[in-house]
Amino acid sequence: MTQFEQYFTQRREEHLAELKELLQIPSISALSDHKHDIRHAAEWIAAALQSIGMSKVEVMQTKGNPVVYAEWLGAKDKPTALIYGHYDVQPVDPLHLWTTPPFEPAIRDGKLYARGSSDDKGQTFMHIKALQAFMQTTGTLPVNVKFCIEGEEEIGSPHLEEFVETHKELLQADVLVISDTTMYERGRPAICYGLRGLCALQIDVKAAKGDLHSGIYGGGVPNSIHALVELLASMHDGNGRVTVEGFYDQVKPLTEEEREAFQALGYDDVKAAAELGLQELFGEAGYSTLERMWARPTLEINGIYGGFQGEGTKTVIPSEAHAKITCRLVSEQNPDDILDRLEAHIRKHTPKGVTINVTRQDKGRPFVTPYDHPLIQAAARAYEKGYGVTPVFTRMGGSVPIVETFGRLLHVPVVLMGFGLPDENFHAPDEHFHLENFDKGLLTICHYWEEISNLK
Amino acid sequence: MTQFEQYFTQRREEHLAELKELLQIPSISALSDHKHDIRHAAEWIAAALQSIGMSKVEVMQTKGNPVVYAEWLGAKDKPTALIYGHYDVQPVDPLHLWTTPPFEPAIRDGKLYARGSSDDKGQTFMHIKALQAFMQTTGTLPVNVKFCIEGEEEIGSPHLEEFVETHKELLQADVLVISDTTMYERGRPAICYGLRGLCALQIDVKAAKGDLHSGIYGGGVPNSIHALVELLASMHDGNGRVTVEGFYDQVKPLTEEEREAFQALGYDDVKAAAELGLQELFGEAGYSTLERMWARPTLEINGIYGGFQGEGTKTVIPSEAHAKITCRLVSEQNPDDILDRLEAHIRKHTPKGVTINVTRQDKGRPFVTPYDHPLIQAAARAYEKGYGVTPVFTRMGGSVPIVETFGRLLHVPVVLMGFGLPDENFHAPDEHFHLENFDKGLLTICHYWEEISNLK
Repeated sequence: MTQFEQYFTQRREEHLAELKELLQIPSISALSDHKHDIRHAAEWIAAALQSIGMSKVEVMQTKGNPVVYAEWLGAKDKPTALIYGHYDVQPVDPLHLWTTPPFEPAIRDGKLYARGSSDDKGQTFMHIKALQAFMQTTGTLPVNVKFCIEGEEEIGSPHLEEFVETHKELLQADVLVISDTTMYERGRPAICYGLRGLCALQIDVKAAKGDLHSGIYGGGVPNSIHALVELLASMHDGNGRVTVEGFYDQVKPLTEEEREAFQALGYDDVKAAAELGLQELFGEAGYSTLERMWARPTLEINGIYGGFQGEGTKTVIPSEAHAKITCRLVSEQNPDDILDRLEAHIRKHTPKGVTINVTRQDKGRPFVTPYDHPLIQAAARAYEKGYGVTPVFTRMGGSVPIVETFGRLLHVPVVLMGFGLPDENFHAPDEHFHLENFDKGLLTICHYWEEISNLK
Repeated sequence: MTQFEQYFTQRREEHLAELKELLQIPSISALSDHKHDIRHAAEWIAAALQSIGMSKVEVMQTKGNPVVYAEWLGAKDKPTALIYGHYDVQPVDPLHLWTTPPFEPAIRDGKLYARGSSDDKGQTFMHIKALQAFMQTTGTLPVNVKFCIEGEEEIGSPHLEEFVETHKELLQADVLVISDTTMYERGRPAICYGLRGLCALQIDVKAAKGDLHSGIYGGGVPNSIHALVELLASMHDGNGRVTVEGFYDQVKPLTEEEREAFQALGYDDVKAAAELGLQELFGEAGYSTLERMWARPTLEINGIYGGFQGEGTKTVIPSEAHAKITCRLVSEQNPDDILDRLEAHIRKHTPKGVTINVTRQDKGRPFVTPYDHPLIQAAARAYEKGYGVTPVFTRMGGSVPIVETFGRLLHVPVVLMGFGLPDENFHAPDEHFHLENFDKGLLTICHYWEEISNLK
C-alpha cells in the first residue's frame, strides 16, 4: 500500500461524511428560489479550501451566482494548474422516482446516491481532498494550483465567460484540469478530448386569448397544441435526421482514424438498449451509436406542455402550448448561428392561426483538444498508476461550455479527467457515484500532480 | 307585467342567493378527491326539489356519482316532461386566470361568475325555480314532471346509460327537456336540434426506463416527446383534415337546406376571430365555420405533457410523454368504431424505439332530432313569449351524450332549451352566466309548461 492509499483508507469515513454535508445543500441553479442554497454551497466550498491550506480563498461575485476562487502558489518553478468544477446541480423532478430523497445522501451497494454526487460536487470535492493529502503528508504541494468553482454550469454558465475575461491574469495557468466528464465504462477510465456544444430555446405557442370549449369551438379555431406538434414534427425526418435548413453545414466529418478508434471500443447496441429498458436504440441513420452520441449534432425536445394535464378528460381547446429544445453541437457549429437557423425554421413553419414566441436560452461552443499534448499524456500515466489500466481516449456527447471558453480565452491545454460513470443518472432521478472511483480517482489525481511536477 | 314577471322580479335576490349557495360547492367530477363535494351537490339539489313540493325525491346510487330523481305527477291527462340536468362541473385550472375564485360566485356587469354558473347548475336551478313559481302562485303544476339530475356529465356520463336502462319505467315521459346548450348569440335564443358525439383517449409514450442526460445519450436513443409529436402530427393534414383512415366514412353530408340555413345566420368569421383574440380562424378546408363547429367531426388534442416543464433549461431526454385527445362526432359515427380506427392509426404510426399505451375514456353518440316535432314547435312559441323574438333552429358542436342515450332508450322527443351564451367560458376560467337569460329563461320555461299543457 502506498502512502496515499494508506492516507485515504484511514480517512475514508471522515471524507464521505464531509461530502454528504455538501450534497445536502439543494443548490439548484435552474430554480430561482434556491438562491440561498447556491450561496450556501459556495461558502461551503470556500471554507473547505480554506481549511486545507490554500493561501488565498475568495467567494467572488458575478452578475449571477458567485465563483469560488482559491490559490496556492508556493511550488517554485513548477507548473500551475487551474482546477475547474461546479457546485450547482440539476433540478430533481420527477421527485417520486427517487429511491431516497435527492438531498439526503445515502450509500447503497458501494454507491453514493444524491443529486450532485457525480455531477459535479463529488468530483470537485475529490480535488480538494487530494491536495489536502499532499499538505498533510508532505507539508506542501508538488505544483501550483488555482481553483475556479462556479455555480451556473447547469444553466449554461451565463456569466463565466465575462468572469474569465475580466480575471484572465488571476486565472492564468499552464493547464486546466476538469473532472466533470465520465469514464468509458466501469473499470475503463477515459481521457476525453472532445465535447459537444449546446444551444437552447423555448417555444411558446398562443392561439385564442383563453382556453375554449371543444364542443362549442372545435373545428372552427386553431388549437395551440396542434400547431406545436406540427411545428416540432417538422424538425426531424423519420430517420432521426434534423431537417432544419443548414443545420449540418458546419459539421466536419470524423476522420477514418477516429471512426476506427470508436469502432474498436466495441460499443454494444443490444446491451445498451437492454440496460436502458429500450427495445432498440434509435438515431440519425448512417452513423454508429457512439458516433451519434459523441460526434454528431442533435436537436432534442426536453419538455412539452399545454392544455389539460390532470386526471380524466377535459374537452378544452388550449390557448397555449410550450416546448423546450436543446441542440448538441459539434465541429464548427456556432450556437448563435444554429439558433438563427432554428428561428428561421420556426418562422417558416408556423402553422396558420397561431403566434409563436421564441426565447433563446443557454449556449456553449463545441470543443476538441489534441490528445497527444504532454499534459494529457501525463494524465494517461496517472490513470495507469491509479487504476492499474491504460485509459482510453474518447469524446463525449455532453457539453461543458466553459471548457471551450477557457481554451479560447486562456490559450491553455485542457485535461478532462472524469471519474463519473455514464449510467450514474446525472440529470435524472437516483443520481449516484460509484465509490470505487472516489477511491481510485483520489489516487489518480495525486499521481497526476506528481507526474506534471516532474515534467521537463 | 305578467304574474310570473312580477313573481320572479320580487324574488330575484333570494333566488340568486340560493343559486350562489349551490355554486359554492366544488363538485368537480373529473377529480376523485371531490367525491364529498359531489355528494354535497346532489343532496343540495334533492333538498331544493323537496322544498318546492315534488311528491317524491330520491338521491339514487349508481356505480359512480348519484343521480337525483324527483317527480310530481298530479296533472291528470296532461303530458309528462322529464327534465335532465347535471350538478357536476369541469375542473378549474389554470386557477390563476380566474378574476374571482371559481367557487366564490360574484356578480359583475349583470353576469354571475362561477364554475357551473352556466354549465349547468345555473340552468338546472332555473327549472326548479320555474316549477316553484307555479306551485306558489297556482298551488299546482300544468304538467307532470320528473327530474333526472346527474353528477357525471363532465366526465362523459359513464353510468347514466345503465341507470336509464334500469329505470326505463320510472323515467318514461312524453318529452325530455334539457337546458344545457346555448343561445345562438345574445338576444337571439335558439332551439338546438343536433349535437355532436364524443370519444376520448389518452396516449402514453414510453421510451427508456428513466429520463436520460441529453449530453451522454443525445442522438443515440429514442426521445418520447419526438415520438409523440411525430405521431400526433400524423393525425391531421395541413388543411385541418383528419388523416386517420376511415374517420369520415360514416359522416353524412349536410343537406342544402341546412347549409343555407346555417349561411343565413350570418356568422362573421372576422368578428369571431377578433373576439377570441385570434388573427384568423382555422379548420377543415371546404366548410364554413358554422359547418365545421356544428356538423363536422374533429380530432382535438386537449392536453400534452412530458419532460421538463420548469423554469429555465434541463438537458434531459424524457422517458415519458402523454397526450389527451377527444373527437367530436356527427351523423352515424360510432364512438367505439372511431376509437378502433384511432388505435389502428396509432399502432401503424408508432415511431421506432418507443412503446405506446392507449386508454379509452369518455364516449357518446351524436344526436339529431327532427325540428318540426310539435313539442319542439311549442318551445319556439314559449321563447317568443319569454324573449319577444322568434328563436332560430341550430345545431351545436358540443356533446351531451345523454341526449342520444335518452332518445334511443326512452324513444322520447328531446327539446334542447338552452339559456347559456357561447362566450360564457364554460370549461375555461371565468365561466359566467348572463343574468338577463336567467330572468327571461325563467319566463320561457313557465310559458313552455303552459304551451304543452294546452297541446291537443
